[in-house]
Parts: sequence; structure tokens; C-alpha cells
Amino acid sequence: MKLLEDRIREEGTVKPGDVLKVDAFLNHQCDVALFDAMGEEWARLFEGTQIDKILTIEASGIGIACVAARHFGNVPVVFAKKAQSINLDGDQYSTSIYSFTKQKEFPVIVAKKFLNEGEHVLIIDDFLANGNALNGLLKICETAGVVVEGFGIAVEKGFQGGGDALRNRGYRVESLANVRTMDAETGSIEFN
Amino acid sequence: MKLLEDRIREEGTVKPGDVLKVDAFLNHQCDVALFDAMGEEWARLFEGTQIDKILTIEASGIGIACVAARHFGNVPVVFAKKAQSINLDGDQYSTSIYSFTKQKEFPVIVAKKFLNEGEHVLIIDDFLANGNALNGLLKICETAGVVVEGFGIAVEKGFQGGGDALRNRGYRVESLANVRTMDAETGSIEFN
Repeated sequence: MKLLEDRIREEGTVKPGDVLKVDAFLNHQCDVALFDAMGEEWARLFEGTQIDKILTIEASGIGIACVAARHFGNVPVVFAKKAQSINLDGDQYSTSIYSFTKQKEFPVIVAKKFLNEGEHVLIIDDFLANGNALNGLLKICETAGVVVEGFGIAVEKGFQGGGDALRNRGYRVESLANVRTMDAETGSIEFN
Repeated sequence: MKLLEDRIREEGTVKPGDVLKVDAFLNHQCDVALFDAMGEEWARLFEGTQIDKILTIEASGIGIACVAARHFGNVPVVFAKKAQSINLDGDQYSTSIYSFTKQKEFPVIVAKKFLNEGEHVLIIDDFLANGNALNGLLKICETAGVVVEGFGIAVEKGFQGGGDALRNRGYRVESLANVRTMDAETGSIEFN
């Protein structure tokens, strides 16, 4: 999606350690007109696919998912919560996600009542790098028995392999910007 | 706002300890059509007031703020982040907020570049109870030198006093549902 790629080139910053900062418009300050265009594009890409619900994970996915949902007939958005601890009270699906950014494992939960067996789900998130967060959401979806129709991702860091691993498992992954290479020294970013 | 009050009566649950659960439509599963109506109502209430930016706090405020921003001419939404620790690198405004729900203090940060002196800001959040989170955001706004034009709140628990304390300090607080009393035993909820 040229609009998003251009914005990343203009306002994104490459930092050492394969970090791409897009906090000016995506995940700290949010450009909701951009989010709206992204939602429109995902709706175009997934046209004809049944989507009953959008699943995302706090915090950065929420705004994107909520604005995008308007283009999917206002389907409900459920966001997985980062929990203090895994609470095995039986009302929640839970899993554990390792964050490379924060270098620690954190528990993630979704209330069982918000994922119903047989529902068709689109998973939306701001970033896809190694795929740890999305694999965590997938595990929850498998346990819940929902049908994952695909992934709507804003920025995929293609060179980190998480997206292709999902594609190899047969999942549809629609990344609106897919970074092939980026360089912290020169600041250059190239897209697939 | 009758639409929100009715929804709270129908799907909200009162729990012991003054807890009102609205996770079916507001802060775990999100009804984006409801968020859109809420945004429209805040835009009506704040009509004629200059709003350059919307400020909220992760996680539950983000979806509401992003959908509402469309009714304020797509102004940018900035969400304060709950940080692991306060990082005094000079690039961030930070404060500490005590959460009664989680019974602990947590640091909150906003990058300085996203709050510019003289900007007119509307603060949006899902809940206003004792006002701790909003007072934290206010402190950051005061340090940044932005003009806080008011607060757009989904659910105020009026009996906990945080909203009136802000009103007594001269702030405009527009809560779309303001709970006067609620009872965990009978499940009854009454609004102001």
C-alpha cells in the first residue's frame, strides 16, 4: 500500500537492532485517516471472505482494528489483554508470548465468551516480525475453535520470517507494507 | 446518552467492590458502532471548541478515541503508554498513576514530540472513577503546556467523586453515562 510505504519512508526511523519506529503515526500518535485507508484496503483484499469478528492485541492493535472494523460492517473487535498473571479461573483462554522488544514472556488472555466456536475471525495488528504475538493469538483461536480467515498487518518486517512462516502454514497474511531490508546507519528502507 | 445507558443496563454487570463490568461492548470486546455514536455525541457537545488533538491512555481508551477522532476532523490521537519503568532520557513526559483495580502504582509516559505547547487537547477515556488516571494525564498536559479543553468520558462512576473534583477545578467533563448508584446484590444501576 503506497500510502503507508510513503509514510514509513517519510516519518519512520530505523534504529539499531532491527527496530523500525513508526510512533509518529501508527503506535503512539495515531493518524486515524491513515487507519481508515488501511481498513478500506483490508476490506478490499478480504472482499468475499466471511469475517464475523476482528481479533487484535493490546495496545497498538486496538485503534487500527477499531477503525478498520467500520469497513467490515462494524463487526465486533476483541482485543487480547496482557495480563499480570495467567488466571486459571476457566473463563479465559490464555497463552504466553515472548517479546523480543521487552525480552520477557508475558501472559495474554481473552475471555471465552468473546470467541465463539465456528466464528470467522480476522486478526489485525500493527507489526509482524518473528510472529510471536500472532502465534499466541492463533493458539487461542485454535483452542476456541474459531476459523482464522487471515491476518491484516500494517507493517511486516519480512526479513524476520514470521509472515512467511504463517503463509507456509496456509494462512493468508495481508501486510500493507512489507519491509525487505532496512539500514540503521543510512536510514534506508526497502519494501517487497 | 440514552444509547450507552441502555446498553450498560442490558449488558453491564455490577460486581462487589464498586466494579462495573462493561467488557462485552466497551473494553474487551468493542462495539465500534457504539463508539461511533459516542464520538458523534462528544463532537456535538464540544462543538465550537478548538480541539487539535485527542489524548487517551492505553489500553481501553484507544479504540474509543480513534473512532471518536473521525468526528473531530481526524485530529491525531496520542495514547499515553504504561511503561515498565520511568525512563528519564528527557524525550518523554512521565508520571505515576495509582490503580485501585490493580492495587499498584504504574508509570505512564508520553513522548514530548507528540504534545506541543499551546495545542488544544481533548482527553478521552472509557472510565472515570476516582480520577487517578486522568489526573496523571492532566499533570503531563500541564508540564507540556497544552490547553486541556475538557474530558470526554464514556462511563463516570459519579459516586466515586473523581469527575466532580475535576469540575470543581474548572474542567469541562462530559460523561455519556454517569452512574449515581449501583448494587452488586440486585444488579441495579441508576444514572444521574
